Amino acid sequence: MDSVYIEDPADPRIQAYANIKERDLVGRQGRFVAEGKVVLNMLFTARRFAVESVLLLENRLAGMERTLELAPPDVPVYVAPQAVLDAVAGFHMHRGVLAIGRKRPPEPLDDLLGSLPERALVVALVGIANHDNMGAIFRNAAAFGADAVLLDPTCCDPLYRKAIRVSVGAALKVPFATAETANDLVARLAAHGFDQFALSPRGEVECRDARRGQRLALYFGTEGEGLPGALIDRLETVRIAMAAGFDSLNVAAASAIALHHFSDAGGTGV
Amino acid sequence: MDSVYIEDPADPRIQAYANIKERDLVGRQGRFVAEGKVVLNMLFTARRFAVESVLLLENRLAGMERTLELAPPDVPVYVAPQAVLDAVAGFHMHRGVLAIGRKRPPEPLDDLLGSLPERALVVALVGIANHDNMGAIFRNAAAFGADAVLLDPTCCDPLYRKAIRVSVGAALKVPFATAETANDLVARLAAHGFDQFALSPRGEVECRDARRGQRLALYFGTEGEGLPGALIDRLETVRIAMAAGFDSLNVAAASAIALHHFSDAGGTGV
Repeated sequence: MDSVYIEDPADPRIQAYANIKERDLVGRQGRFVAEGKVVLNMLFTARRFAVESVLLLENRLAGMERTLELAPPDVPVYVAPQAVLDAVAGFHMHRGVLAIGRKRPPEPLDDLLGSLPERALVVALVGIANHDNMGAIFRNAAAFGADAVLLDPTCCDPLYRKAIRVSVGAALKVPFATAETANDLVARLAAHGFDQFALSPRGEVECRDARRGQRLALYFGTEGEGLPGALIDRLETVRIAMAAGFDSLNVAAASAIALHHFSDAGGTGV
Repeated sequence: MDSVYIEDPADPRIQAYANIKERDLVGRQGRFVAEGKVVLNMLFTARRFAVESVLLLENRLAGMERTLELAPPDVPVYVAPQAVLDAVAGFHMHRGVLAIGRKRPPEPLDDLLGSLPERALVVALVGIANHDNMGAIFRNAAAFGADAVLLDPTCCDPLYRKAIRVSVGAALKVPFATAETANDLVARLAAHGFDQFALSPRGEVECRDARRGQRLALYFGTEGEGLPGALIDRLETVRIAMAAGFDSLNVAAASAIALHHFSDAGGTGV
């Protein structure tokens, strides 16, 4: 694959990479930034998202050959020296492996649910506003073969730069959609035949004793407040037993435990 | 509890809080920084570490009454306005709840192992150099009632400021000790009658099918390279089954799954 050497930070071809951290805050008008070789591998192999360009630190080009072979053939690959990369990004980019992807139009929840297999496992998130947690939950969803992640409107964007990075690219692989409200999410999942389990410290059944049906949605809420009581009342509840005196589990850790338990990965799903 | 109002960032009584981020790098000569109400609650109730002082943003004092009641009675509580706090810390401290604790002398591994109950669960870490992972693993260890965390010398410090914060104070509660080498760790645990399971993607038994004896040590290695092959050869191995095409699990997430499975918390340990 040919690459284009860029010598001027003001070159219009790399302006999508300008002021990376500031743009995290104001948004990118339908684009996202993918960082690092593992994430680019996922971006290129999952093929859920169009790729606009790749930008590499010049000394990284040699090690990226196999990754670039996976990229769509027409994607421009820009290569720049450290000073140019730092100047355009607005901070020191010591790793220097970047791509710009294009977001998809929001997928209607019913379309996504309608596309899922007869036996399905989905993650339902309510109020997950922390990008580290969002990324970590996507990573667990991918690791345990969840078919989709469904969000309520108070969740943060899974395609935020840090969420993608923490997800190790899983946010570019696992399909997701946003419901109009958390209540709408419950209604749509019920209409599509899903059992719905809310993870809650006061859940009725311990996770290891819970059994799933063909279609299962697992709900996770924010760490501090958890899922809203009115929502929990409409769902079956599952708890993760913890030691007395320290009943505090990170929501991503809770998702790892529950997804592992209910996953068919390894052929021993419950 | 009486508090002392501090008006001068150069006041010698608060110099342990000076240049917080720079001191993270050079070390604190036997001290550590605890941040946030939940962490201070744990510092004061676990009582594993001596407390030198507390420093609060003045508008946080009112909400800290119940926490301060848990503190040792002779601990000085300093209160400062935002400008003084920011000036001494060297950056904007918008939360403003801090304490300085004193590290304990390193506990010999045999002493710690000798103090554990007949039925015991410990976490053994080899090469965990990331403070987020260290903190998250301690949080999981506390949540699932692990009796100790054992480190090899290539692990980072669990009392590093960020590790304590991510652990939500668990690093101040769960006893830990450092072995001279990873091989020494294996030998000492064997001498104390521990079964030793290494978590590895190529483990012989899937986690949910593994059964423990009275004393169990669970080994976790770095995310990239995992546990050294020579070490794995000396241990029983356990895997966490993952989906094809995304066999990537964060080490803290792996610890959550394994600790939950082997924990007696909830009265249903395996």
